[in-house]
Amino acid sequence: MVDVCLLGCGGMMPLPKRALTSLMLRYNGNSIIIDCGEGTQIALKRKGWSPKSVGLMLFTHFHADHISGLPGFLLTMGNAERTEPLLLAGPKGLERVVRSLLIVAPELPFELKFMEFNDDSEFTYEGVRIKAFKVRHNIVCYGYSAEIDRQGKFDPDKAKEAGIPLKYWKILQSGEDVVTEEGVRYTSSIVLGEKRKGIKITYTTDTRPCENIVRYAERSDLFICEGMYGEDEKIEKAKEHKHMTFSEAARMAKDADVKKMWLTHYSPSLVNPKEYMRNVRKIFPESYPGKDGLTEEINYEE
Amino acid sequence: MVDVCLLGCGGMMPLPKRALTSLMLRYNGNSIIIDCGEGTQIALKRKGWSPKSVGLMLFTHFHADHISGLPGFLLTMGNAERTEPLLLAGPKGLERVVRSLLIVAPELPFELKFMEFNDDSEFTYEGVRIKAFKVRHNIVCYGYSAEIDRQGKFDPDKAKEAGIPLKYWKILQSGEDVVTEEGVRYTSSIVLGEKRKGIKITYTTDTRPCENIVRYAERSDLFICEGMYGEDEKIEKAKEHKHMTFSEAARMAKDADVKKMWLTHYSPSLVNPKEYMRNVRKIFPESYPGKDGLTEEINYEE
Repeated sequence: MVDVCLLGCGGMMPLPKRALTSLMLRYNGNSIIIDCGEGTQIALKRKGWSPKSVGLMLFTHFHADHISGLPGFLLTMGNAERTEPLLLAGPKGLERVVRSLLIVAPELPFELKFMEFNDDSEFTYEGVRIKAFKVRHNIVCYGYSAEIDRQGKFDPDKAKEAGIPLKYWKILQSGEDVVTEEGVRYTSSIVLGEKRKGIKITYTTDTRPCENIVRYAERSDLFICEGMYGEDEKIEKAKEHKHMTFSEAARMAKDADVKKMWLTHYSPSLVNPKEYMRNVRKIFPESYPGKDGLTEEINYEE
Repeated sequence: MVDVCLLGCGGMMPLPKRALTSLMLRYNGNSIIIDCGEGTQIALKRKGWSPKSVGLMLFTHFHADHISGLPGFLLTMGNAERTEPLLLAGPKGLERVVRSLLIVAPELPFELKFMEFNDDSEFTYEGVRIKAFKVRHNIVCYGYSAEIDRQGKFDPDKAKEAGIPLKYWKILQSGEDVVTEEGVRYTSSIVLGEKRKGIKITYTTDTRPCENIVRYAERSDLFICEGMYGEDEKIEKAKEHKHMTFSEAARMAKDADVKKMWLTHYSPSLVNPKEYMRNVRKIFPESYPGKDGLTEEINYEE
């Protein structure tokens, strides 16, 4: 139902074999990208997904490794003859930062719209509810949840009981109400059961562990979390630079009761993230080391 | 004597297998980079050369594919604990453009110095004479020549004739003058023959063919020239976008009487530059298709 791709898993600087951390979500013909560092457009091209459907770009914060690829990304969109407007959303100051970067790309053939957050925020983009929540870095930084609701189950017996003509069933089933030519109104709630668990994906990077992450990540199907350092001994370094160790990420995944966690935003000094997974899985068994291009299709629960 | 590496050979946008056009020169422990698009730091890392010795960065113009990698490049230099100042040189407006891009990298641990050209210019950096010359693009754009002079040949007979003590020969041979403790002055011109041909490398991209290129590239050992299009039939497109076909580049190489030409800055639509070389070599036999990481050590003539 939702395709998720971790385009890159690096932090600080792009490496020949590790692109900077960026996430792409595809849902119902529309795409969302979170973060766009130097080389994100290369990673996307390597993945083979099209930038054409991207209508929303979210930014966690304004450090170069999360946004400096934007001018090139937008120019490449423009070269592909995009004309549809693009929504950019992120912390307060986003438009100023983007306009400043665009000094080298002053003429785009499509409009940029901006949404800036002053605090935890919520909005809906093409059927996806986005929640922006503050995390703890050395500059203002947000994490994001993307949630897709799921209708209750359609009950044909109830529809029959209410005498609803068959031709309206499909519309009601999709959650929309119907007003017939004769002026009769049928609401979908008559024929739908209780709302079922939808899909939830949470992404957070460049942060110390914090309550807000646990709260917003709660029961996510997929939790993409930074893990700058594999070694527990690097905890002091993690505290100093406002990042996390793998173990800290795993404890948050456990506390938030998520289904699965991908680690990302590795320090360039972290050569083989797999090495540390045995310990991490003692804390949270469904931990996986992110890698460039790691992809999953996330469906509603059966 | 001079190591030259074409870090990338692409134009417009970086591709998974083709970095954006950028050139690095190493001479006598110092390095110069010309152009720094998105991913140039990745290409340099892939090449394995160190950014540490880079003391001068030259920019042809301010289109994103030639400069948008700068914030990341400078941050990576900073992370490598650089403290020495760095000289950035390019067209008028360079400092304003760079400061604007650095909104995402406001704190660097080293100083940036700027040199801006209003017209054809010349200066010397660590023994390399740099000539900046205007070319013909749709915004102000410069090409660059890097020249290294070569002393005349040392003539020991002349040194003996002039009664110069042996201990001063080496200094005079290097082109420096000597004043002895007794106040006697020996000038190197006494013992050196006529200046010999030095090394000359010329780089130009994002331009139509023009007189100024031929003039400044004259007798270069290596001429790195843009070739956006392989097909001669794309001449109208080349004119429209102010670029060149391979054949046009080859005619300039011939007119400038250079020793060798590397083509670069290929259009993303140009998949296999080698295909077009047979025709190009009919115009200028010493034409070579640039590729990422193409390297040559250029020495004085025997």
